[in-house]
Order: sequence, then C-alpha cells, then structure tokens
Amino acid sequence: MTRYNVSDRYILVEEYITSLQMLICTALEKTDGTSFSEDNWEREEGGGGKTKIIENGKIFEKGAVNISGVFGILPEEAALSLNIKSQDFAACGLSLILHPYSPKIPTIHLNIRYFELADGKSWFGGGTDLTPYYPYTEDFRHFHKILKESCNSVIPGLYSIYKKQCDEYFTIKHRKEMRGIGGIFFDYLNGDDENNLKLIKSVGDSFLKSYIPIVEKRMNEKFSDDDKFFQLIRRGRYVEFNLIYDRGTLFGLKTGGRIESVLSSLPPEAKYIYNYKPQRGSVQEEMLHYYQPKSWADV
Amino acid sequence: MTRYNVSDRYILVEEYITSLQMLICTALEKTDGTSFSEDNWEREEGGGGKTKIIENGKIFEKGAVNISGVFGILPEEAALSLNIKSQDFAACGLSLILHPYSPKIPTIHLNIRYFELADGKSWFGGGTDLTPYYPYTEDFRHFHKILKESCNSVIPGLYSIYKKQCDEYFTIKHRKEMRGIGGIFFDYLNGDDENNLKLIKSVGDSFLKSYIPIVEKRMNEKFSDDDKFFQLIRRGRYVEFNLIYDRGTLFGLKTGGRIESVLSSLPPEAKYIYNYKPQRGSVQEEMLHYYQPKSWADV
Repeated sequence: MTRYNVSDRYILVEEYITSLQMLICTALEKTDGTSFSEDNWEREEGGGGKTKIIENGKIFEKGAVNISGVFGILPEEAALSLNIKSQDFAACGLSLILHPYSPKIPTIHLNIRYFELADGKSWFGGGTDLTPYYPYTEDFRHFHKILKESCNSVIPGLYSIYKKQCDEYFTIKHRKEMRGIGGIFFDYLNGDDENNLKLIKSVGDSFLKSYIPIVEKRMNEKFSDDDKFFQLIRRGRYVEFNLIYDRGTLFGLKTGGRIESVLSSLPPEAKYIYNYKPQRGSVQEEMLHYYQPKSWADV
Repeated sequence: MTRYNVSDRYILVEEYITSLQMLICTALEKTDGTSFSEDNWEREEGGGGKTKIIENGKIFEKGAVNISGVFGILPEEAALSLNIKSQDFAACGLSLILHPYSPKIPTIHLNIRYFELADGKSWFGGGTDLTPYYPYTEDFRHFHKILKESCNSVIPGLYSIYKKQCDEYFTIKHRKEMRGIGGIFFDYLNGDDENNLKLIKSVGDSFLKSYIPIVEKRMNEKFSDDDKFFQLIRRGRYVEFNLIYDRGTLFGLKTGGRIESVLSSLPPEAKYIYNYKPQRGSVQEEMLHYYQPKSWADV
C-alpha cells in the first residue's frame, strides 16, 4: 500500500522525530554506557516503525525510545468517533520511557504525536511526565522549570494549562493519586499549526536537559532495600495506570498495534502487595504526598 | 442503610459462601502451615465483606479468599445497561486466587456470585481456571476431570459448554493466547434456580479436590531459575488480563469497590521483558502451546 500525498508538515514532523530518536539514544548510550538494540517493523495495513530498546544497562534497567509512522484508510469506527467521513490518514509519533534500576532516579516518559487526514484536518498531541520514588523535591522543581521554559517560550502561559492537564490525565482514578509528579500533557491541538509544530519541537528538544542532570546527580547514590521495595510497589501502580487508563496503550492494543512496542513501556519488574503502607515517618511516606497535584515550577 | 427483604435463595448463597470461605481457608492453612490474616470491611452504600489474605507462606507467596455481600439502590446507569428500572439490589460472592511461590505449582482462581433485584429477577455466575507455568499435562487433566464431574453431576453436558466459555473469556485478546489452561466459566444464569444453586455449590465443593492434590504433588519439587523467570513473565500476562479484560476487576475499580480487595488478585511480583521468547526446545517453549484451547477432560 502506498501513502497518500501527506502534507509538508507531516514530513517535517517525521523528520524531526527520526532525528530526535537518534539524538536521544546517542545521549542515553553515552550516559549509560550500554547500546540500544533496534527492531524495524512493518504494519500490514501501511507504515511501520523503529523500536529501540535498552535492557539491563548500568543505569537503565529497561527503556524504549520508539518511533512509528502509520497510514491507511481510517477505520469506519474511528471515523465515526471523530465525526468525520472515513478517508486516508497518516500518523506518526515518538514514545519514550526509561525505567532506571535505582529508586533514586525517576522513571520518565515522553510522547510526541501528529495525526492528519487527507482532507487537511490535523492534530498534535504529546507530553512528558516524571515518576520519582524518592522525595528529592529539588529534582521535581528542576524538571518542571525546564518544562515551563519550554512551553512558555512558544506561548506565554501555556505551561500552566498543560501542567494542569497532565495532573488530571496521569491520575490513577480508582486510587485518587497520580502515577508520579506530573509534567505536561496536551492533545487534539489544531489551529495554529506553526506554533503547534514549534511546541512539540520545544518539548522534544528539552527532554535531555529536563532529565539527564537528574540522572547524573543521583546515579552514584546508594539506596536501601526499603527504597527499592517502594519503587517496585510504585512500578506496580505504573502498570495499573498504563493498562487501565492510558489511551495510547489501550488504543494500540485494541487496534492491532505491535504488542511488544506498545507494551515496552511496562516496568521490567513490579510488586503487588496487599494493603501496602509505608512506615510512619519514612521517606516513602513523605513521597506519597507528592503523588498529588502540586506547584513545582513557581517555588 | 438496611437491606431490602432478600429472597431465601440469597440467604442460602450467603450462608454457603461464608462456610466455604472458612472451609477453604482452614484447608489451605493446613497445607501451607501459615495463617490467613482477616480484614472485615464495610461499604458506605450498604453491605461489606471479609477479605482473607495469605502472604509469604511456605507454599503460597500471595493469596486471597474473599467474600462480600453488597446491597442498595441499583445505580441508574447499571439499571439502563440491564434494561430494567432502578430498584433495590443485593449481590454476594466469593473470589479466590492463589499465587504459589514455586513455578511448578499453578496459580488458581475461583469465583462464585449471585445477584438479585427486589422485583424477583436474579442471576448466578462463576467459574474457576488454572494457570500453570510448567507442562505437567497430567495436572491439567486432573483439574479438568474434576470440573467435568462437578458440572455434569448437575446437568449432563454442562461441562463442555462452560469449558468453551472459559477458553473464550480468559483470553488475552491482544496476544491471542489464554492466561492459563482454562477451566469453566458461566454468567447471567437464570431460570432453573434450583439447578443453578446446585451448580455453584458443586463448583465450590470441588475446589479443594481439583487443586490440593496438584499442590501436594509438586510442593517439594525443585525448580530452576529459568522456571522461575518464566513464571514471572506469565504473571505479567496475568496482570495484563486482569487489568485490561477482567470484567469483575474493572467493575470493582470503576464503581468504587474496595481497591485492596479487588486488586488482591494481582501476583506478588511480575516481570515485563521486551519481546520475550523461551529457548528453543525448552519446557517453557512447550508450555506456550498449552495456552490455547485444548481438550483436557476427554483424553
């Protein structure tokens, strides 16, 4: 199957995520000292992707930096849900998740995506959020400050809108708690596409400076069995979120996406304990308070 | 809040699951040498339950044998989905799951439930399924033979219907594989309530003889690191099923059930590895073939 004549904007996004994947993997390989493996895959109905995986690295126990670009005829059902007629579509995106071995280093997630239809409609989406396991609040502030700069350099005031949307989206609703300490989240952006393109580039370009300084600061710190146990419990919550609520994951699984790429976001190991409560006065108990919406960039 | 005047049948089911919980826990405590802990809980809108948990036992790394009985006014949304008017309802059930430490002993699940409305309508449901990690096919045959006797003693031919429904229900659809080797599954049974009551009692009464002989046969067997690794991967698949497809789990989480009781079914520990493939010619590779519908009681 051949792709319809996609827009120049699509080509720009595709080129951007392709070079971003390379840039990020190169930087992470330098930090970790371990190489990513690479799987190129094709989608029967049109398109494919490049899945890059790191496993059992010195720092990263498991991580994925994936790009994909798929196209074809929009299924009737999807068209109905968007209230448009079925037609050619193309979608591309980059998804990143890193699960460090050390509970002192947070898990991070980044996503950038673009979707367009042959009739000219298009949407941008994306976001990034941090899931720490240790109450190093200075790291949370650093992360949010970079995101604030990154969003507000495109349109002043954007950060606070997307920060709020992230707090809402990355919430484990049945537990009334976030999976981490948030970040930014945006979806269905259309209209000013020049700015939307600027935004996803700004978010993508900020990834390394939002995360690598935290990794470098914490990578040689010791941690206790309690720290590790808490991380494994929280990774279980991460699985709860991804399998019950994450729209991208569920969409991927239920529409015949490549399972191994979609589920590469799951942590390498997780624990599920009945009625887990951290010890009174422990850092873990303190950490639990931070899985609720808080202001991090303005203090 | 007080419960409406439930039927005699409701009282019978409630008494049955209460005594079954005691009977099963006593037997499991004897086999394992470890006691269950007990949490009695109340539901704000009416009713409550008794959650019995075993953790870090000699055999069972984690297990739950839970009963609950809830009542109140059926929410408008639920009434609509059943195409009836909102009214008083009462529901009770027993849910059991056991995750042994040894990969030579299968995980088991059992559920029995009864739901009735003030206007007299009622439904029975339930089932049991086995999730082994080692290709001891004689154990799978034993399990299914007990279920066959148990179902067919109520109505000849029932087993093959419920066996097929189980193969379909306990399937991880995105992977096109079952979570284990099946068992029996039935839902929305109404009509001949004498027989339906007999059925759930027959299934409940068969639990110990379907499972304990397998536990006793395998509990002292050694296992390798490969065996354990495979179990942890398959436990990850168990989580995938429970959080994405299991109707009871999702209903419980999304309608404000008691989270810790609902999620007590999750395995104590699980692994998620990118693109896992067992070694060629290994017992693990053989085991993968059995996560597809097969005839176990008739060979």
